[in-house]
Amino acid sequence: MTRNIRYSSVFAATVFALLCLNATLPTASARRMKETPSAIRVTPPAPVIDDTKRLAELAERRARVARAIGPKAILILFSAEPRVYTKDVDYPYRQENNFYYLTNLKQKDATLVLMPGNPRMPELLFLPRRNAVAENWNGRMYSAEEARQTSGIKDIWDAEANVSRPSDAGRQFEAFIKAIRARQPYTPPAEKIFFSANPSGPAADGYAPLFEALAKNEAGLYLLGSYAPNSDTREYRQEQRLAQEFTKAPDGFTLRDAWPIFTEMRLRKSPWELALLQQAIDISIEAHQRAQVFASQAKWEYEVDAEVAHTFKLRNADNWGYPDIVGCGPNATTLHYEEAQGPVTAGSLVLMDVGAEYGHYTADVTRTFPVNGKFSKEQAEVYQIVYEAQEAAARATRPGSSLGQVHAAALSTIKDGLLKLGLITDVNAITQYRIWFMHSTSHWLGMNVHDVGGSATLDAGMVFTNEPGIYIRPDALDNLPKTEANEKFIAAVRPAFEKYKGIGVRIEDDMLVTSEGCKWLSGALPRSIADIEGFIAKARREGVR
Amino acid sequence: MTRNIRYSSVFAATVFALLCLNATLPTASARRMKETPSAIRVTPPAPVIDDTKRLAELAERRARVARAIGPKAILILFSAEPRVYTKDVDYPYRQENNFYYLTNLKQKDATLVLMPGNPRMPELLFLPRRNAVAENWNGRMYSAEEARQTSGIKDIWDAEANVSRPSDAGRQFEAFIKAIRARQPYTPPAEKIFFSANPSGPAADGYAPLFEALAKNEAGLYLLGSYAPNSDTREYRQEQRLAQEFTKAPDGFTLRDAWPIFTEMRLRKSPWELALLQQAIDISIEAHQRAQVFASQAKWEYEVDAEVAHTFKLRNADNWGYPDIVGCGPNATTLHYEEAQGPVTAGSLVLMDVGAEYGHYTADVTRTFPVNGKFSKEQAEVYQIVYEAQEAAARATRPGSSLGQVHAAALSTIKDGLLKLGLITDVNAITQYRIWFMHSTSHWLGMNVHDVGGSATLDAGMVFTNEPGIYIRPDALDNLPKTEANEKFIAAVRPAFEKYKGIGVRIEDDMLVTSEGCKWLSGALPRSIADIEGFIAKARREGVR
Repeated sequence: MTRNIRYSSVFAATVFALLCLNATLPTASARRMKETPSAIRVTPPAPVIDDTKRLAELAERRARVARAIGPKAILILFSAEPRVYTKDVDYPYRQENNFYYLTNLKQKDATLVLMPGNPRMPELLFLPRRNAVAENWNGRMYSAEEARQTSGIKDIWDAEANVSRPSDAGRQFEAFIKAIRARQPYTPPAEKIFFSANPSGPAADGYAPLFEALAKNEAGLYLLGSYAPNSDTREYRQEQRLAQEFTKAPDGFTLRDAWPIFTEMRLRKSPWELALLQQAIDISIEAHQRAQVFASQAKWEYEVDAEVAHTFKLRNADNWGYPDIVGCGPNATTLHYEEAQGPVTAGSLVLMDVGAEYGHYTADVTRTFPVNGKFSKEQAEVYQIVYEAQEAAARATRPGSSLGQVHAAALSTIKDGLLKLGLITDVNAITQYRIWFMHSTSHWLGMNVHDVGGSATLDAGMVFTNEPGIYIRPDALDNLPKTEANEKFIAAVRPAFEKYKGIGVRIEDDMLVTSEGCKWLSGALPRSIADIEGFIAKARREGVR
Repeated sequence: MTRNIRYSSVFAATVFALLCLNATLPTASARRMKETPSAIRVTPPAPVIDDTKRLAELAERRARVARAIGPKAILILFSAEPRVYTKDVDYPYRQENNFYYLTNLKQKDATLVLMPGNPRMPELLFLPRRNAVAENWNGRMYSAEEARQTSGIKDIWDAEANVSRPSDAGRQFEAFIKAIRARQPYTPPAEKIFFSANPSGPAADGYAPLFEALAKNEAGLYLLGSYAPNSDTREYRQEQRLAQEFTKAPDGFTLRDAWPIFTEMRLRKSPWELALLQQAIDISIEAHQRAQVFASQAKWEYEVDAEVAHTFKLRNADNWGYPDIVGCGPNATTLHYEEAQGPVTAGSLVLMDVGAEYGHYTADVTRTFPVNGKFSKEQAEVYQIVYEAQEAAARATRPGSSLGQVHAAALSTIKDGLLKLGLITDVNAITQYRIWFMHSTSHWLGMNVHDVGGSATLDAGMVFTNEPGIYIRPDALDNLPKTEANEKFIAAVRPAFEKYKGIGVRIEDDMLVTSEGCKWLSGALPRSIADIEGFIAKARREGVR
């Protein structure tokens, strides 16, 4: 990786050398599939969206936000800050979701302003100017014309961003917002205007509704989030800084949180969004299948995970939507087990919770499968309860229901099953089942893996996860508070615990609420015991040396 | 991916659905290697380090820091802050380099304090207490005993960190530092002391040298970095906050920057460090080879990159050391091209700059190879100049030399070559060669890809990159300022430019300075035209369907 021609300070240095090492570990298995077994479902071609329709949907999204904030307010969205890996290296850039939702632009250091009260300039984008040196180093930037064609926004000004600052809304935005606060129209120098919707230049006379509202202390400034004076935030630091400036000197503005507007909009997915999400899910399905087939050859969990990393990149996923979870045996009982450093052992189950991100939408899919291709009796008993809990959750899914009701349906099945296995003694004791099933069945899914939505009532177009689980952690009983009731409980469940301990099962599918009930978006990935065993047997027969 | 049982605010929601999509793109190639061709160099087993030697080296590193800061100072290192991906999902955790360099601990929310003036407690670690619920969700935490065995540090207190705060040094550290500033010994409640080196409990009487220095305003507080009052930093925000607190009320402390101490130490690699770095390099070599072999089957750059992602994970790399750069044809002329969205075209070169990170050390290796396995005449002409520049750089590498001299050696070869190709007219005009070779030949390599070291004089044990390049950007001449001199230059080089345009070549190896000269740590990866062509031909013959 190249570095620019600059060196910093001088330091002397002294010798520091020690020890020696031996390399004695066995080489990890390197065999690979001969060819893709036909049992594996190859990811379909990427969805193609008609550009006119895409721009119409973007415009409609912005129009909905505009209607929600009204003519006496402005909304400001900043590009995401890059995330630093270490020192001068950043993670691959990922745009802020709502900025992307309204613009489809991946540019850093851009700022979007919506001003519904200004009929001559309701939407304004501040965009960094292309720069040959920056492009030589870091790749193409959007030209203003490309940004206009990508977003459909008609007023675009030079951000004059200083990319060496950690995050920078840019000088033109600063000048603009300063003028607005002083109730002055602002027109930048002509060479800073890339595009203007008005042939006569940007509108100086369209601010009346906003300025009148400001004079009456009735103007709203919408930002993502609401920020206490000394709050600290890991994301949205530009918003935080701006909010704090405005809190010190409101100038007629009242700060308002834009999140509820986006939450409501993003909860229901359009066909375009569903196509992107389905692609993320399809990539994830192929990754799960390849990993299931390969697992019998793997010595270590990370080797199984390598199939996932390979498939995600081969199918052009943006990234994972969340770090891969691949745990064998007892590691499957840690919900967000990310290390993947444990051995893969025949006779164990592997829990894989991996989801690709594609086009800014993330899948979230879990399967638990036997390394050797056949569930043991005990594994199957636990698995079948979780499977039936998922079915119950799906039956509870319909418009008008809630994620709480979906959870209740799954939970009821889990509790009955745990009682039958002998792992609880009382289905009504919350402290009992929570030892083995300690998370919720569902969360919303979309641009984030735990997407916006709160406790909304289910309606067609919403997407959520259906992911019950049972986790017999080997240390679960040891960690219970030492009470008389717990001692009695432990004595009662000890035999079942010894029988099932170390088994962790989660099954997770992505559910679209439809007018009739629901659709299993990840349904193409084998899920029943028979289907999983059948798939693994068939694919391994044909595919692996 | 599971979520805890908590839902936030309620929002109504309305229907929002539009358009429809067609999936019409061709499916990306899915064929894979039959088995690993014998021409590919499989990564050797991971290095194993004797635990006694490892602990001795860690102790010696801390002792060196202690000697550097002296008895009148303390040094504070914080665990890295987790990096947020989006919303509640973090990137996989990566410890701060210097914290890891002194402790080998990957724990979040820990704090290390070195107090060389306190003979009874020269090293103190604040460690979050293990917690069954946190471990159920996020995996095993270090027990205090494990932390002691991993780091060798003998005084370990409960950090009492509040993990819900973005970054938190913990309540015990806050109490400790508050007491120190007031020149009061601090002893936490007994149940907060995991381990104490003194049988009689932690030392209350060892602070004399520090407290005397404080009384005379002579005490030093060493932190990573120096922070202006209103500075903003993307990393080291805990250090920044603490520095700002101390700047407001110094209490006898003078803030000092700890970076020069670590820079000097980390510049020279121990055999243990070299073994870790070599493993990172070996994984990278295998990734390059697999990608080179597969490239002829790929349609898109990201498919080539998929081989890299697969190999890194299969060989248990921590991660990449920097985002992969895989560019075909003209995309090779963008130095940090990360998109990998372009087509792979027969007859083009692919530039791959990819390096694995292993054990906190990163490789940094670039190869440029022909998709079809044979360099064209023009490609070979450019390539050979870069190859010879690398050789010249290696010849300039010896103790006593400098990265500036290494660069000068490579540059001289590049300039002569560019003159011969007709791409410059004057080897002395900096504005000419910089059009085609715009970066430095070398940077230090270690825990960061652009590692610490500044302009140090070369000495045995130092590691740096040797990476000259030539990039004939298609828009290079268009971007020159419109001057008379440039017009003349453009006219003179136009024929050569038309001949070579779109070719980008970089070759990058990792060099260890030895007492005699240098060692090519990445030398096992074919580099000459003949070796690359020979490797690709042999591996594709045996390996690919």
